[in-house]
Amino acid sequence: MRLRVVFSFLGTLLIFIGGSMVFPILTALYYRDVDGVAFIVTMGFTIVVGQVLRNLATGEENLRHREGFAIVTLGWFLISIFGAIPFLLAGVFDNFVDAFFESVSGFTTTGATVIMSLESLSHTILMWRSLMHWLGGMGIIVLSIVILPELAGSMQLFKAEVPGPIHERLKPRIKETAKTLWVVYLILTVVQIIVLCLQGMPLFDAVIHSFGTISTGGFSSRTLSVKAYDSLMIEVIMAFFMFLAGVNLTLHYQVLTGKVKALLTNQEFRFYTLIVVTAIVAITINLRLQVYKTFVESFKYAAFQVTSIISTAGFATVDYDIWPPFSRGILLILMFIGGCAGSTAGGIKVIRIYALMKKGFQELYKVIRPRAVTSLKIGNRAISEEVSTSILGFFFLYIIVFVISTITLTSFGIDLISSISAVAATLGNIGPGLGLIGPLNTYVPLPIVGKLLLSFCMILGRLEIYTVLVFLLSGFWRK
Amino acid sequence: MRLRVVFSFLGTLLIFIGGSMVFPILTALYYRDVDGVAFIVTMGFTIVVGQVLRNLATGEENLRHREGFAIVTLGWFLISIFGAIPFLLAGVFDNFVDAFFESVSGFTTTGATVIMSLESLSHTILMWRSLMHWLGGMGIIVLSIVILPELAGSMQLFKAEVPGPIHERLKPRIKETAKTLWVVYLILTVVQIIVLCLQGMPLFDAVIHSFGTISTGGFSSRTLSVKAYDSLMIEVIMAFFMFLAGVNLTLHYQVLTGKVKALLTNQEFRFYTLIVVTAIVAITINLRLQVYKTFVESFKYAAFQVTSIISTAGFATVDYDIWPPFSRGILLILMFIGGCAGSTAGGIKVIRIYALMKKGFQELYKVIRPRAVTSLKIGNRAISEEVSTSILGFFFLYIIVFVISTITLTSFGIDLISSISAVAATLGNIGPGLGLIGPLNTYVPLPIVGKLLLSFCMILGRLEIYTVLVFLLSGFWRK
Ligand SMILES: [K+]
Ligand SMILES: [K+]
Repeated sequence: MRLRVVFSFLGTLLIFIGGSMVFPILTALYYRDVDGVAFIVTMGFTIVVGQVLRNLATGEENLRHREGFAIVTLGWFLISIFGAIPFLLAGVFDNFVDAFFESVSGFTTTGATVIMSLESLSHTILMWRSLMHWLGGMGIIVLSIVILPELAGSMQLFKAEVPGPIHERLKPRIKETAKTLWVVYLILTVVQIIVLCLQGMPLFDAVIHSFGTISTGGFSSRTLSVKAYDSLMIEVIMAFFMFLAGVNLTLHYQVLTGKVKALLTNQEFRFYTLIVVTAIVAITINLRLQVYKTFVESFKYAAFQVTSIISTAGFATVDYDIWPPFSRGILLILMFIGGCAGSTAGGIKVIRIYALMKKGFQELYKVIRPRAVTSLKIGNRAISEEVSTSILGFFFLYIIVFVISTITLTSFGIDLISSISAVAATLGNIGPGLGLIGPLNTYVPLPIVGKLLLSFCMILGRLEIYTVLVFLLSGFWRK
Repeated sequence: MRLRVVFSFLGTLLIFIGGSMVFPILTALYYRDVDGVAFIVTMGFTIVVGQVLRNLATGEENLRHREGFAIVTLGWFLISIFGAIPFLLAGVFDNFVDAFFESVSGFTTTGATVIMSLESLSHTILMWRSLMHWLGGMGIIVLSIVILPELAGSMQLFKAEVPGPIHERLKPRIKETAKTLWVVYLILTVVQIIVLCLQGMPLFDAVIHSFGTISTGGFSSRTLSVKAYDSLMIEVIMAFFMFLAGVNLTLHYQVLTGKVKALLTNQEFRFYTLIVVTAIVAITINLRLQVYKTFVESFKYAAFQVTSIISTAGFATVDYDIWPPFSRGILLILMFIGGCAGSTAGGIKVIRIYALMKKGFQELYKVIRPRAVTSLKIGNRAISEEVSTSILGFFFLYIIVFVISTITLTSFGIDLISSISAVAATLGNIGPGLGLIGPLNTYVPLPIVGKLLLSFCMILGRLEIYTVLVFLLSGFWRK
């Protein structure tokens, strides 16, 4: 590994993050908020460190596999460390671990929090939390174009998901593709801000919630999350945009350029919609029978919570932890599924679940017809054996990481359901879970080591597990 | 599918099961127990039905794939139905579903019960429950030689696990192999009976507990299970034989014929031992710190419960449901792992977990070295891509079946942990779970549909999922 190359890339990243602190600083100026000082100091420090690292550049730009994994893994850690500094300087936390947890939770678009009352925070701090989400979302878009295609056959999957022959792919060059998707990301964000403002939400709150929705982050400016606004229309808008946020940005681009058919014929989008509709119907019936008095109320809560969890945004309008086991169980399953590939959502991803289902049937079919030539198709594209095997491998690794992290968490005395859901909610970048860390609670009660473990889970999940594990193991394999 | 062939095989099976009822009848004669009448009646009925089916035989003996799956799946259902009749005739249950549940639980060596007080049962009924375990174990041995090698590359795995070149395999012919392994099974059973008797356990109880151990069934003659004897030595013996029961019978045979080295060099056995030791150490420390006052007491309970759960026997000497989440979590993980392939244990099986771990590392390695030629080895044998893929597929199907069954169970209002563990404990053929169905509880509180669902899970798990699913889907595929 050429460390100079890696560090110079990380330096550029730090300068970018340092520069982005101009937004909380502007917020502080507008609201005449003293917390702005924390950001001015951090901004200077971050840019200086970034520039020092950048000076290590060797002029080479071509990255090797390992270097790419190192940059992404270390990059997400590094920006989380620097992003935590303003929290400490502004006195939001009195220890580094909490600040780091909140920062990781921001940049990985998880939205798990260790802050009890959001109303005690300044606008500046709230802006930074949500900006981390939004920047994290931008990072994921790059990741899904540059790094992930190298992993687990995602490239072939991604290809398979864009209808038409290969030469019709979105844009041939990576930089162009990234820019295009960022524009789509920006458009979605701005549209949601406008729509929320039209419904009477204050501009600041609209920005915060739009950042949290489109990035599928889920940080709110209110302790009660979206429930605080007590507005049906706002809930409907949020649910609609959360649903959109879980969809492949490529499809959004195609719809924006008039190709609506691409959306409707997309297998992943159809399966995603099917899961959402099924889950909403099941939970609505369960809630109507056992919790709420009307069908409308049951549907309202079900629709919001299902879109919130499957898109991995993690907003809440109700304490779903008091729901019957069936509804809570479905939400727990949705935490594992997550949104579509190519979106900012976390989790295993709908396309993988879809491919796995097909693969499972194929394996059963092989038992009966061992010599039959079978091919796995998604849409009108064949998925190679290699790709489907690596998706199965991904599933296994996801479950193994989940099991090991959960059992580690229980060793701190945390009950099974809370441990299970805490890991599911951080690994899948959802945010809130069940029990101890339910939607009305925070991650405050966890011990320090538990917070560090879950911070690691957030990064692991965000980088699709492979990236981090390959980075950690690459030193071992070099020998 | 040639239905006549299938039915004639099922007829032979019924005659065999009918004939086996001579043992509860002899028990009834010895104890002058009126319940013997129920068995005489059922025996006659079963044999008559069996003979009628047998008369459909066409003279052909070669089975097609589908017919094999049909015979195994329908066979396990059918013997469970006929095995349930004595329970009804003897008035143990007042409804068929409970009787069927108990019978399925017997033949699948699960050991989940819907009987509140075992002390209220006659010796005859107790003998039948445990005999079902023992016969079920015999069935699994045949299954593992005849049907399973066709499935999910188990054959290649099985081969891989017998050291030395292929021509050195245990015995070339299926019937010979089955007979050899049955003898090993019988020897283990008899030895355990003798050892238990030497420790002062009454002969009848020793037979019951030995049947329950070697078959990994877990039905006891006492409501308090092994705890009722309050004897350290009996617990040690039980733990030791449960550990043995989780080991491949082929290895037992090799040890009995003097090839101890085959045991010590066997990768699956080593990994099994590693898991057992690790789990015992972890639980012992956790219990010592949080529950019991001495190290010895903690170790005693940990060792018994770990061997009991991983071997999927499911006996208990303590209410482990009051243990801290960490210990309960480890037991829950062990429920999924299960014992070694080629034993009577249920679960995913150690060899598969081992292969999956290796496969997982291989997939990670491929990311770094996409062009490297890698091969998966267990011991000194290479596992083909096809086999490792089908193991990954098995894992995925196991988890999917688990998730769907669990969510269905929660729809009856059963809490998450109870639902999760009930499915894990039936699918893995363990018996007791956590919470509502903990070691001191029974499956009595579940609704009828829940009992039927779990009965299905027991058969699904026992027949390694593939067998049942392929049977169910084969009609669909024929079209
Ligand atoms: K989130
Ligand atoms: K059992």
